Amino acid sequence: MTAYWCPTAWLPQGPTARVRLVVAGPVITVVQPGVDPAPDDVVLPGVVLPGLANAHSHAFHRALRGRTTGQGDFWTWRAQMYAVASVLTPDSYFELARAVYAEMVLAGVTAVGEFHYLHHGADGVRYDDPNAMGEALRAAARDAGLRLTLLDTCYLTAGIGRQTSGVQLRFDDGDGAAWAERVTALRPDAGFRVGAGVHSVRAVPRRQIALVADWARAQGVPCHTHLSEQPAENDACQAGYGLTPTQVLAEAGALGGLSTVVHAVHLTPGDIAAIGASGTTSCLCPTTERDLGDGIAPAAALRAMGSPLCLGSDQQATTDLLAEAHALEMHERLTSGRRGVFDPMDLMAALTTAGHRSIGWPEAGALSVGAAADLVAVRLDTVRTAGALPSQVALVAGAADVDTVIVGGEPVVQAGAHRMGDVGELLGRAIGKLRADERPCGEP
Amino acid sequence: MTAYWCPTAWLPQGPTARVRLVVAGPVITVVQPGVDPAPDDVVLPGVVLPGLANAHSHAFHRALRGRTTGQGDFWTWRAQMYAVASVLTPDSYFELARAVYAEMVLAGVTAVGEFHYLHHGADGVRYDDPNAMGEALRAAARDAGLRLTLLDTCYLTAGIGRQTSGVQLRFDDGDGAAWAERVTALRPDAGFRVGAGVHSVRAVPRRQIALVADWARAQGVPCHTHLSEQPAENDACQAGYGLTPTQVLAEAGALGGLSTVVHAVHLTPGDIAAIGASGTTSCLCPTTERDLGDGIAPAAALRAMGSPLCLGSDQQATTDLLAEAHALEMHERLTSGRRGVFDPMDLMAALTTAGHRSIGWPEAGALSVGAAADLVAVRLDTVRTAGALPSQVALVAGAADVDTVIVGGEPVVQAGAHRMGDVGELLGRAIGKLRADERPCGEP
Repeated sequence: MTAYWCPTAWLPQGPTARVRLVVAGPVITVVQPGVDPAPDDVVLPGVVLPGLANAHSHAFHRALRGRTTGQGDFWTWRAQMYAVASVLTPDSYFELARAVYAEMVLAGVTAVGEFHYLHHGADGVRYDDPNAMGEALRAAARDAGLRLTLLDTCYLTAGIGRQTSGVQLRFDDGDGAAWAERVTALRPDAGFRVGAGVHSVRAVPRRQIALVADWARAQGVPCHTHLSEQPAENDACQAGYGLTPTQVLAEAGALGGLSTVVHAVHLTPGDIAAIGASGTTSCLCPTTERDLGDGIAPAAALRAMGSPLCLGSDQQATTDLLAEAHALEMHERLTSGRRGVFDPMDLMAALTTAGHRSIGWPEAGALSVGAAADLVAVRLDTVRTAGALPSQVALVAGAADVDTVIVGGEPVVQAGAHRMGDVGELLGRAIGKLRADERPCGEP
Repeated sequence: MTAYWCPTAWLPQGPTARVRLVVAGPVITVVQPGVDPAPDDVVLPGVVLPGLANAHSHAFHRALRGRTTGQGDFWTWRAQMYAVASVLTPDSYFELARAVYAEMVLAGVTAVGEFHYLHHGADGVRYDDPNAMGEALRAAARDAGLRLTLLDTCYLTAGIGRQTSGVQLRFDDGDGAAWAERVTALRPDAGFRVGAGVHSVRAVPRRQIALVADWARAQGVPCHTHLSEQPAENDACQAGYGLTPTQVLAEAGALGGLSTVVHAVHLTPGDIAAIGASGTTSCLCPTTERDLGDGIAPAAALRAMGSPLCLGSDQQATTDLLAEAHALEMHERLTSGRRGVFDPMDLMAALTTAGHRSIGWPEAGALSVGAAADLVAVRLDTVRTAGALPSQVALVAGAADVDTVIVGGEPVVQAGAHRMGDVGELLGRAIGKLRADERPCGEP
């Protein structure tokens, strides 16, 4: 049992002064606001938040950060991404992902939803354990010290009616039934849960989307889908089905309270209404969406129609969930000319409760009795944060201001250092090895 | 004489491996690419850049960071900004500005253009030295260790044809001649230069704009102007003059090679052409422009028409020039759907040569023989930067990755620490004192 004393803690009602949190095993057992620290309390600095949920991650995209210079668009970037995907093995992905997840924990992330489609070996040859890549991610997250939901993602076509080829064969299970059989073999553990992914309406035929959604509903687990990230996806969907991607998901039964759509940039008013009315969560990844030139999602409209919002670091152009929350509000200001469209409570809900629900950890994301003991202390005395109100933390602080991260009662980051040591060095080594092996990828 | 050895240095031709830079006094005397370090060389980490220029700063706005929550727009923010302006004295501004400038140096800034309009005491009463506030900024910059151009700014009206009142009386010199007399009394020194500012077409009548522009041209010093930050300014200008703000500046002779327009968000094609054809620099402040809901400036179009681009931290919502360069490119991606609109050389020019020229330090901003010895080493082995190419530094690194800053041959930041000590603490103390005194400001 450990007691933490917080000058300010972000309780469900908002930032609260002088809070004592008692943690027993993996759970918070006592929350006392307005008290002095007891002699043996561990005093945390700054403002203490619930652990942050990163609801959309592609861990291996971290190897592309600072490497994809030059003119182009989303699709030229994708060719570079495929080049990295083509060289990963279970061993090299483990080494990369544990460093990437450690970087996430340093940024205050205590639970991640990994949208995982890199299943098989070269040319689609199955590994002896067909879940070898997913198991590598499980082991990586365990070392790095955060909760992982493997959103195991179905990917069957190169486009509507087009066969996979090249590196895409590594993603392809053949059909939805084979996908379900493989995924069903994955076993949860204390830090690991399984959910479903539909890569996109480009990569999964509509009947197979229904199959994946049915599987997720039967299991009671999350189902995530990339949605309308680029106009070209919408155009292809209209050409192939005469429907918007959102309409395809709705008809396939892939919207609803267990579902999350990711990006949701290029939507019609009808799409927005359908997402909201169904209780589908929208996961925005604003630092990715600007980096890839996707555009700005209609976040305020989605929320107004009833869609909870959460956030993801996606391609890891930045691994900083506070920066995602900041960008969510900033992008809304750019489109509306208004400030404070999302207030501090909205941003914190997106970072915590909504994100954890989206990836299937409903017991985490709040500093309350019985909740998972996932805590993040963010300093308010750095050059970036000095002078700011605790309520404004998501608008001023970033990953570099995270001091302490506790996951399930275990300290993983203390004084800004991860228990695994120099994470920059781990990242540099893992990425350097991949880059040495890299070969250009034939897939456009 | 000190020799620095850089694994990579950003020379005028671009990132270059294994570079030795010899510094004698305040100047670079030798540049040797492709060499090994000599035994006594100081080995710098990562990529070594020329010192960065922050071409548009309002130092005191730093006291607003993380304090301006709540719904509103640019104009409600301005009321909060006026509340801070109302309480500053030469002493308290000195204390705040030296911490703010130290934060800038920690971010790699070695020269700042301070757009300074807070000239007088309460109700406009002149200080014994009518330049007491400007002198406080000079002293602050000297302590913090960076070059300062005081862009002493003329502010005469509350709007076209409207008298100043409330805190604006502190800005108001009465007329352009009185402004010029006061500014002419300022004496440059080794680290301090003087330029002119026209607050905006709202705050300076057109004939007085001409007077300020003439003064700057006669002195051969920079002249900066806020331009078309908000649609309301354009509307008022059309109503008052039947011209766009850019047209007013053009008619007043305030465009040209010594001139910089700041923000330049809401422009007509004719405005863009006039700015470009005149060789006027455009200073964008993208983190401010999104924070205040101003919108996205037509940066690529301005450049295409001939306007050099530079960058400023403006209201210090973020004090991170690398983040400004990143945002410049990201905002262009959001409007165009394309990546790499600005290539790494473009971004570095905006951060260095174009910025230094804009604020009147043409001898700084390049790692070349005879240039000012202003160097910034940015680590490429942190969690944020590991794996990135040196050329991509502005897209992956931020202020937290700055390791060493040398200004005029003097080390000011080493191993990420400023020679003044804990700058977060200095900021917190200076802002805390202001906040204790703060009173609501009557000016809307």
